[in-house]
Amino acid sequence: MKKAISVGIIGLGTVGAGVFRILTKEKELIAHRLGVPLEIGLIADTNISRFKDVGIPQHLMTTDAKEVIQNPQIDIVLELIGGIEPARTFHLMAINHRKHLVTANKALLAEYGEEIFQAAHAQHVDMGFEASVGGGIPIIRVLKEGFSGERISAIFGIVNGTSNYILTQMSEEGRDFSEALKEAQRLGFAEANPQLDINGGDPAHKLAILAMLAYGTPVPLEKIYTEGIDRVTPIDITFAERLGYKIKLLAITKLSEGRLEARVHPTMIPKEEILAQVNGVFNAISIIGESVGESLFYGRGAGSMPTGSAVVSDLIDIARNIQQGVAVRAPHLAYLPETRTAIEIQPMEEIQSSYYLRFHVEDRPGVLSEIAGVLGQHHISIASVIQEGRRGALPSSSEKGVLLVMMTHQAREKDIQGALVIINGRDSVFEPTTLIRVEKIH
Amino acid sequence: MKKAISVGIIGLGTVGAGVFRILTKEKELIAHRLGVPLEIGLIADTNISRFKDVGIPQHLMTTDAKEVIQNPQIDIVLELIGGIEPARTFHLMAINHRKHLVTANKALLAEYGEEIFQAAHAQHVDMGFEASVGGGIPIIRVLKEGFSGERISAIFGIVNGTSNYILTQMSEEGRDFSEALKEAQRLGFAEANPQLDINGGDPAHKLAILAMLAYGTPVPLEKIYTEGIDRVTPIDITFAERLGYKIKLLAITKLSEGRLEARVHPTMIPKEEILAQVNGVFNAISIIGESVGESLFYGRGAGSMPTGSAVVSDLIDIARNIQQGVAVRAPHLAYLPETRTAIEIQPMEEIQSSYYLRFHVEDRPGVLSEIAGVLGQHHISIASVIQEGRRGALPSSSEKGVLLVMMTHQAREKDIQGALVIINGRDSVFEPTTLIRVEKIH
Repeated sequence: MKKAISVGIIGLGTVGAGVFRILTKEKELIAHRLGVPLEIGLIADTNISRFKDVGIPQHLMTTDAKEVIQNPQIDIVLELIGGIEPARTFHLMAINHRKHLVTANKALLAEYGEEIFQAAHAQHVDMGFEASVGGGIPIIRVLKEGFSGERISAIFGIVNGTSNYILTQMSEEGRDFSEALKEAQRLGFAEANPQLDINGGDPAHKLAILAMLAYGTPVPLEKIYTEGIDRVTPIDITFAERLGYKIKLLAITKLSEGRLEARVHPTMIPKEEILAQVNGVFNAISIIGESVGESLFYGRGAGSMPTGSAVVSDLIDIARNIQQGVAVRAPHLAYLPETRTAIEIQPMEEIQSSYYLRFHVEDRPGVLSEIAGVLGQHHISIASVIQEGRRGALPSSSEKGVLLVMMTHQAREKDIQGALVIINGRDSVFEPTTLIRVEKIH
Repeated sequence: MKKAISVGIIGLGTVGAGVFRILTKEKELIAHRLGVPLEIGLIADTNISRFKDVGIPQHLMTTDAKEVIQNPQIDIVLELIGGIEPARTFHLMAINHRKHLVTANKALLAEYGEEIFQAAHAQHVDMGFEASVGGGIPIIRVLKEGFSGERISAIFGIVNGTSNYILTQMSEEGRDFSEALKEAQRLGFAEANPQLDINGGDPAHKLAILAMLAYGTPVPLEKIYTEGIDRVTPIDITFAERLGYKIKLLAITKLSEGRLEARVHPTMIPKEEILAQVNGVFNAISIIGESVGESLFYGRGAGSMPTGSAVVSDLIDIARNIQQGVAVRAPHLAYLPETRTAIEIQPMEEIQSSYYLRFHVEDRPGVLSEIAGVLGQHHISIASVIQEGRRGALPSSSEKGVLLVMMTHQAREKDIQGALVIINGRDSVFEPTTLIRVEKIH
C-alpha cells in the first residue's frame, strides 16, 4: 500500500484547472473515500502564464511533458492538452513507461482509440476516460460497470452543449441560428471557432466512444454519418412544435439487421420524452437496454469543474486499483479484447426512420398530388400533411409559393433521398426540400 | 483465476426470476465482458412451485437457505427474500462463512445496515446492493464511484414508482387518490397491501441508504421525517399546476447548518425541472454536487428485469474482484469506516422551506387579513395569494366557504406549524389547513 498516489498533469487548461481545484479543496474528502491522499506530483504546460492564474507552486511546474511522463514518482499521467498530436505521442510514451493514464481527449480516443487501448492492454495499465463523453455525467462507468449485464438496444445522446444551447435559444426565444450562435459565443458556451461543435464533429467523437463500449466493436469515425445544426431553421422548429416534437442534435447508435447504426444529426423527438426536456448547455444520454428498458443520465456536459470532477473520479478509481495491487479490473473497452468483433456499420442509405419533409412549392392545384405520387413510387407512406395558407410563414429569402410539410411513416433513407432528387428537380419546387429524421426514444 | 464464478440465490421471487433469466439468456455476453462464466450453483426457496414457473433444473433446487450459504462451491450469495428476518440472519451467516453478498433488500440495509456492513468489513467480503435503490438505475455506483471526488450538496429522489404512478394519474387523468390507487393495483404497480409504498416507508428506506453513501454518516431510520401521498388531493394538484408546479413524492437529503436533513414528503417542484417530467412508474434521482452541479439519473425503479439487471451488475463487479484476488476495493458505504462520523439529523421543526398553504375559510371580509396577520407574527412572509371566488372548486365534502391558497417565502417549519395551530383553531377556518413543502432542484 502506497502512502500517497502521485498524479502528473499534462495541460493546464480549463479542465486541468478544475482538477487542481478539486484535488486541493477536497483533499480530506477524497482521502476519506480513497484511504490515501491523491497528490499532484508535477504539471506540464508550455504556457507559463497559466500556472499563475491557477496559483501553482513553483516546484510543481515544468514546460516539458516528458518530465511528467518519465518521472518515476508519478503513478498516473493525466493528459488534458486535447487534439491528436502531441497528445497521441504522449499517451503511447506514458503507456510504455507503464504509467496509468487518464484523459478527457475524445478526439484522440475516437480516432486512435484502437491503437492506444491495444498498447494499454499490452502494458497492463489502466485508462480512465470518463471525462471524454458527457462531462460530469458518469456515462462511461454506467456502460462499463452499471450496465455490465445489459444488452444495449440503442443509445440516444445530447452530447454537445453548444448545439443544445443554440437549439434551445432558437426554440424558446425564436432566434435564428446565427443570432443564437452569437449569443452562445458571448456567454462563453461556444468557441470563437465553433465548427466542431456546430457541424456534429464533436458529438461524432463521443458517439464513437459510446458505441465501442456498448457493442464491443471498433467504430471507424469516418463511417459515422454526421450532420450539424447549421441548417435548422426557426420555421422547422415551429412546425416541429405544432406536430408535437422538439428538434435536438442527437448522437444515435443501435443494432439493426445485424449492423450497427451510428449517426449524428438534428432529430425530431416527441416533446413528452424526457430527452426533449433537456435544455440549454445540459447533456443527456438515453440508454435503452433489453432488461432495464429506458434510462437516462443528465448533467453538465462541459466546464472546468464538472469535467474536472469526472477526471478526479477516474484518478480515484485507478488509485483504488493501485492500492490493491491490481490493474485493468474491467476491460478498457467494456469487452475483453479477444471477444471484440468488428460489426459492420450500416450505410446511411440503408437506415430506416420516419421523416419530416418541408417542401417549398408553387401554389397551384396538383402540386401536392405530384409530390405524394413521387413518394408513393418510392414506397414512402405519408402519415400527416400540413399545408400552409398563402400567408403562412415563408423563408425570409423567398416570398413566392407555399410551404408543404409531410410526416412519413417508417421509410428507408435511400428511398427518401431518391424521391427528393426527383421532387427537387421539378419546376414547381422552389428550393431544396428540408429533411429531418424523426425518432422515438424507447 | 477461477474458471467460473458460482452464485447461490436465496429467494426466487420476481427479482430472482429476472436474475435467472438474465444469467441464462446473456451467458455469452457476460462472459465477453467478465472473462469468466457466472454460474448459478444453487437456489433456495421455501415455495417449490416457483421453481417450476421459472424452469429451474432439479439439481439446482433446495428449500433450505443454509445449504446455499454453507456450500463451499458458492462464491457469492444473493439474498432476495426481502424483509428483516430471516434475511438478517442469512446475511450475517453468509458473511461469517466469508461469502460475498448481493442483495436488493432496502428495508434490511436501512434498519440493520450498520451491523451488516460492520460484519462485512470485519470479514473483508464484498457487498453489492445496487438493486436496493432505484431498480435499474445504477445510483449506488454513481455515489460510490462516479461521484467519488464530489461533495454532495443535496439529493432529491423520486424513488417509489407506485406513488409516482398514482400522482401522475391524479395529475393527468384527474383521478382522486383512491381511484388512482385502485388502477395501480389493477395494473400490478401496487401491492394488495400498498401501505409501505403509499405512506413513504419504502422511499424512507431508500433515502437512508442514499444519505449514508453521500455523507458518510449513519442515518437512523426513525429520524427520517416521513409523510406519504394519501393526503394529496386533486384540488392541490390543480392549484399546483396553476402556480407552475408539479407535486411529487420526494426523498430529500441535504446538509443545512451542519446537520443532515433527511425527509420524505409530497413536494411541489417547478414544472420546468427535469424531475417534474418524471411520470408513471419511473424513478429519478437528482444529485446536486458542488463541482458537477445538477445531475439526474432516470429509469425503471422496479420490476423483475430492471432490478435483475442491477443485481447482475453487482455479481459481475464482485466476480471481477474475485478474479483479481481482491475484495472491498471501494469502501462498502463510500467512506472508509474509520472516517465515517455521525452527523446529527436536523429535526423536522428546524428545516427551512417555502410552503404552499391551502385554507378553507369562511367567506367574509377580514378573514384573509386575520390569517396573514398570524403568519406575519410567526415571521412567515407571503409570496403570492390565490383567493377562489365562491364558485371555485371546493372539497366535495363541503359546500360552504372559500378556498384561500398562499405560497410563502422561505420559512422555518416550526413557525409554520405554530401559525397553523392558531389558524386552524379559528372558527372561520372550516378544516385543517393543507400544507405542501416547495423545493427548487439546484
